[in-house]
Amino acid sequence: MKIVNEVFGVSSKHRNQMIDITSQVSSVVSQSGITNGDAIVYCPHTTAAITINENADPSVPHDILFTLEELVPHHRAGYRHSEGNSDAHCKSSVIGCSEQILIKDGRLSLGTWQGIFFCEFDGPRSRRVMVQIRGE
Amino acid sequence: MKIVNEVFGVSSKHRNQMIDITSQVSSVVSQSGITNGDAIVYCPHTTAAITINENADPSVPHDILFTLEELVPHHRAGYRHSEGNSDAHCKSSVIGCSEQILIKDGRLSLGTWQGIFFCEFDGPRSRRVMVQIRGE
Amino acid sequence: MKIVNEVFGVSSKHRNQMIDITSQVSSVVSQSGITNGDAIVYCPHTTAAITINENADPSVPHDILFTLEELVPHHRAGYRHSEGNSDAHCKSSVIGCSEQILIKDGRLSLGTWQGIFFCEFDGPRSRRVMVQIRGE
Repeated sequence: MKIVNEVFGVSSKHRNQMIDITSQVSSVVSQSGITNGDAIVYCPHTTAAITINENADPSVPHDILFTLEELVPHHRAGYRHSEGNSDAHCKSSVIGCSEQILIKDGRLSLGTWQGIFFCEFDGPRSRRVMVQIRGE
Repeated sequence: MKIVNEVFGVSSKHRNQMIDITSQVSSVVSQSGITNGDAIVYCPHTTAAITINENADPSVPHDILFTLEELVPHHRAGYRHSEGNSDAHCKSSVIGCSEQILIKDGRLSLGTWQGIFFCEFDGPRSRRVMVQIRGE
Repeated sequence: MKIVNEVFGVSSKHRNQMIDITSQVSSVVSQSGITNGDAIVYCPHTTAAITINENADPSVPHDILFTLEELVPHHRAGYRHSEGNSDAHCKSSVIGCSEQILIKDGRLSLGTWQGIFFCEFDGPRSRRVMVQIRGE
């Protein structure tokens, strides 16, 4: 059983943005030499998140961000947090700050249409993504 | 440390449906021979998800699906994705495509009322569920 | 590779409440002696959840609970579950019943502003939190 840890950076350009990080995570898997196990992708920020969804058609990330903004608007009467990013904290907890993906035959076992996204909800900012690969 | 991988199929009959897969996951745990560790239950589809909730009263899954449909309706002005299933992609990211459950004494350590559900948001379809058991 | 399991109790005082459990989880990590690996924090209840978010400013948990209540109100025409806590079941699936946090140098690798919260959605109640630490 082997454990490999890696960190890489992500730069967002918009307040709300889904950034495809599948290739970065795949590289960590390849370099780990682990062929059977899993990968944890973890976001150490409280106004961002990690999700897995379709990365073929850019309208899918658009519609996810659009829906989240409809449900959790940037400004809403009742928010108390003074930094003006309460919506980003809520979206982070709704989407979740990590994902796990199985590894088989030395590769991420993603479904045909699945990609891994870093979700920015309070950009633009420089962010970090932590990856841990565990297996044999 | 042992790693066991398994895949099983699920057939949904409705557009939105929560299907109890607890017994299938339990079987994979039993057959793995692993008594202490965890199970990852992973959905490789972008319009479905995995969740853990009450499986005793069927009104609970009904109310969860009903609430998700109220929040993320099938049709909404502003969606761009041309396949007509933007809502299903959003629900998938909100619920999440995997769950992890601890294993103790050779069994899933679920709470008294907890069951594992495959959540279909764009059925009816034939789907797959991936399970990885890790432990000793 | 070592696996350590622990359980601790949490008492909620309100119907909706986010309780910071970071120090309890950190103690389990310290006592495990594991320096490289991960921690799973798991909630065995169907009307509660686990999330990671900012624990510096109490207005952040307030705004998350406030937003969830706006989206998933306690009472709504259409709920069928007779126990009157359909909203709590929905919130549990939206937030999710577990989180995983990486462990490096014998400590939880949380981001600067991140804390781990037990989310009560049907309190006040006595609850349990299960923790599994895996690594070397």
